[in-house]
Amino acid sequence: MKRILIKGCSILTMCIKEQPFIGDILIEDERIAKITPSIEEAADRVLNGGGMVAMPGLINAHNHASMSLLRAFSDDLRLMDWLDKKMLPAEARMTKEDIYFGTMLGTAEMIASGTTAFADMYVHMDAVAQAVVDSGMRASLTRGLVFLEDDGGRRMTEALDLIDNWTGAGDGRITTMLGPHAPYTCPPQPLAEVIDLARKRRIPVHIHLAETREEIEKIRMKYNQTPTEYLHEAGLFQDNHVLLAHAVHLTGTDVKLLRGMKGGVSHNPVSNLKLGCGIAPVTDMIANGVTVGMGTDGAGSATTLDMFAEIKAATWMQKLEHGNPTVLPAEQVLRMATIESAKLLGIEKEVGTLEEGKRADLILLDLNKPHLQPVHNLHALVAYSATGADVDTTIVNGQILMHRRQLLTMSWEEIRRESAERAARLVEGL
Amino acid sequence: MKRILIKGCSILTMCIKEQPFIGDILIEDERIAKITPSIEEAADRVLNGGGMVAMPGLINAHNHASMSLLRAFSDDLRLMDWLDKKMLPAEARMTKEDIYFGTMLGTAEMIASGTTAFADMYVHMDAVAQAVVDSGMRASLTRGLVFLEDDGGRRMTEALDLIDNWTGAGDGRITTMLGPHAPYTCPPQPLAEVIDLARKRRIPVHIHLAETREEIEKIRMKYNQTPTEYLHEAGLFQDNHVLLAHAVHLTGTDVKLLRGMKGGVSHNPVSNLKLGCGIAPVTDMIANGVTVGMGTDGAGSATTLDMFAEIKAATWMQKLEHGNPTVLPAEQVLRMATIESAKLLGIEKEVGTLEEGKRADLILLDLNKPHLQPVHNLHALVAYSATGADVDTTIVNGQILMHRRQLLTMSWEEIRRESAERAARLVEGL
Repeated sequence: MKRILIKGCSILTMCIKEQPFIGDILIEDERIAKITPSIEEAADRVLNGGGMVAMPGLINAHNHASMSLLRAFSDDLRLMDWLDKKMLPAEARMTKEDIYFGTMLGTAEMIASGTTAFADMYVHMDAVAQAVVDSGMRASLTRGLVFLEDDGGRRMTEALDLIDNWTGAGDGRITTMLGPHAPYTCPPQPLAEVIDLARKRRIPVHIHLAETREEIEKIRMKYNQTPTEYLHEAGLFQDNHVLLAHAVHLTGTDVKLLRGMKGGVSHNPVSNLKLGCGIAPVTDMIANGVTVGMGTDGAGSATTLDMFAEIKAATWMQKLEHGNPTVLPAEQVLRMATIESAKLLGIEKEVGTLEEGKRADLILLDLNKPHLQPVHNLHALVAYSATGADVDTTIVNGQILMHRRQLLTMSWEEIRRESAERAARLVEGL
Repeated sequence: MKRILIKGCSILTMCIKEQPFIGDILIEDERIAKITPSIEEAADRVLNGGGMVAMPGLINAHNHASMSLLRAFSDDLRLMDWLDKKMLPAEARMTKEDIYFGTMLGTAEMIASGTTAFADMYVHMDAVAQAVVDSGMRASLTRGLVFLEDDGGRRMTEALDLIDNWTGAGDGRITTMLGPHAPYTCPPQPLAEVIDLARKRRIPVHIHLAETREEIEKIRMKYNQTPTEYLHEAGLFQDNHVLLAHAVHLTGTDVKLLRGMKGGVSHNPVSNLKLGCGIAPVTDMIANGVTVGMGTDGAGSATTLDMFAEIKAATWMQKLEHGNPTVLPAEQVLRMATIESAKLLGIEKEVGTLEEGKRADLILLDLNKPHLQPVHNLHALVAYSATGADVDTTIVNGQILMHRRQLLTMSWEEIRRESAERAARLVEGL
């Protein structure tokens, strides 16, 4: 058995209403064996947590990691220009190898900024899955299903191959979902078939919902419904575990349709802001019992996968929307980025809080920096002042993926070189 | 003469429409002597800028630096609870020494996150000025003038002492302003006197304006005017150079009253969001010819003094407000945080862009990180993905204040220890 002992850190368990305390954490193989004020036991490795905060790794509930190759390639454009003239043509050039290295770049950034698990929807998912295995991260993977063109069932075949071949891979770090892409790319018939298949095989569903005003208009024209009503009528919220990405434009009635759903919503505020989409009704959804976690969306829109930026943006937006600084306080927004996101991925029994018996997915933040001193309230300090660069150590499934900011499961030089070369080819002439 | 040569960096001069290029920068004493694609000259010190971005140091146009002692002390509270129950009682305990060390903590954070100059309004300004001299930063200092209580002219005496004793100190790094605090703390008579004095002695003015809805209501009740109308009627915008902080709640008519004013507005989006104040009409002010720079406000509200967070928040808010991602693009928002802020401090002929002959106030950002690779568009990459932690080197007036993230003009250990002890005393029992 491999034992790692972390000594003398300030511990934010993110369990409800649990106050921060100073203590030790013992990891045995892939699990947290003990968390108490003092542990005096032998270990293979002892990490000094003095001046550090230990907290659950952040969980990015909606991402397209390999789009990191297109970071800062096409900002400040109208949504349709951004998509049609830049993103889609560049993505059409992506090979399986591009997607492997793009995902490795994404995992490098996520590990370096304290994210330990993510949900991803993309294509060439074999390459994404291999990158997850190699990086050491935890992920819920989905092959996006667009039904607008007849592809002879190719996408669906790939979606099921991903589920059959990769579920449980990487010592159980990989889980999978079915991914009907969005209301506006899934007509009623194939959508009903996917929902039915997901229900019968008990596969969770990952889908975009109500991201833009254009989508609302499109679905209104086609079906005289809101996108949420469209998915509700298709039966998606009856039995399936569903991970909804965005949910920006929801009516009060829409929010009520989500009551009691399994899964919940990934709020992606930075992408929503940068694309000028709007503010999701986060507090309203929470008040209606809907689980709301947090994600970045791809770096093509969000530019960075730093979840600490999302944490700030999420609470700022709700305070702004309600004209009330007490809304979505620090502790709650940190829970959204950890345990609430874990619920969306269906892994909340294994990760998302620091508790004995759970998987050891955790991070250490170094507070010995001007912007993190003095220490009054740890939740507020972490939520409102920390960034990904303050993460000193990232551990997933008991394996140290980064220590003292050195990435340990990959060659950063290789990823950097491959990313630069491939990115240049993808955007040439665009 | 002391010569520093920076070799092979990507240079963002922030001059209008100038494209980034790779080149060398020669600093002679306190000034930029040359910026060209290649400089082969002897120097006392050569810095390798490979893989780095050189850009003007960021300029924080509205701050209360010593409030860094109250970082993360009282978040998620109603504005009046935050102010009356937490900030004001803690501030009332501050000694001159507290304010010195609080300001040193603030300068440590600013230097470490790429800010080279700031505008500050507070009390015990001798201590603030001493910290500016010791830290090596550039600053515009103001003694805040509240006229609600009769203090026998003490505040005004201190304000004039600051101006007489410290203007030009620190090799010219310190400039000063007069600081009538805000419309709601300055009745017509003393406000008129300050404006008159400022005009006669040609002293710039730093004042808060229209930060909260409560302020709008208060001034409406008292004078049946908007705060902007109140200041306009007092003659503030006629001849004086004025630095307006916030300007969140401006009517269309208010914006027109600011047309042609000398100085302009410091936009402080993070503080405005965290306190639930609202979104300032930034693009409307710019369209009316008003100079808009950027600041953090104190860490008591903003939590961090990282200007890169303000850069992101500023562009996000405008894109959101207009439902349009093309608004306030990356290059423009970076100019707000550099040359536009310099105009507010009245130092735009000396700093704010990288140009031969200007003072050497500049920073180097290290791009060798996952979230800053690959490099497509440098302005977008810096605006949307960089944080203060990416700053490798900070230079002010030709002096290196930080290199390889080591602070060179202060003992971080001493500041950290003093900050922790003093902060604990300030908030005890609150």
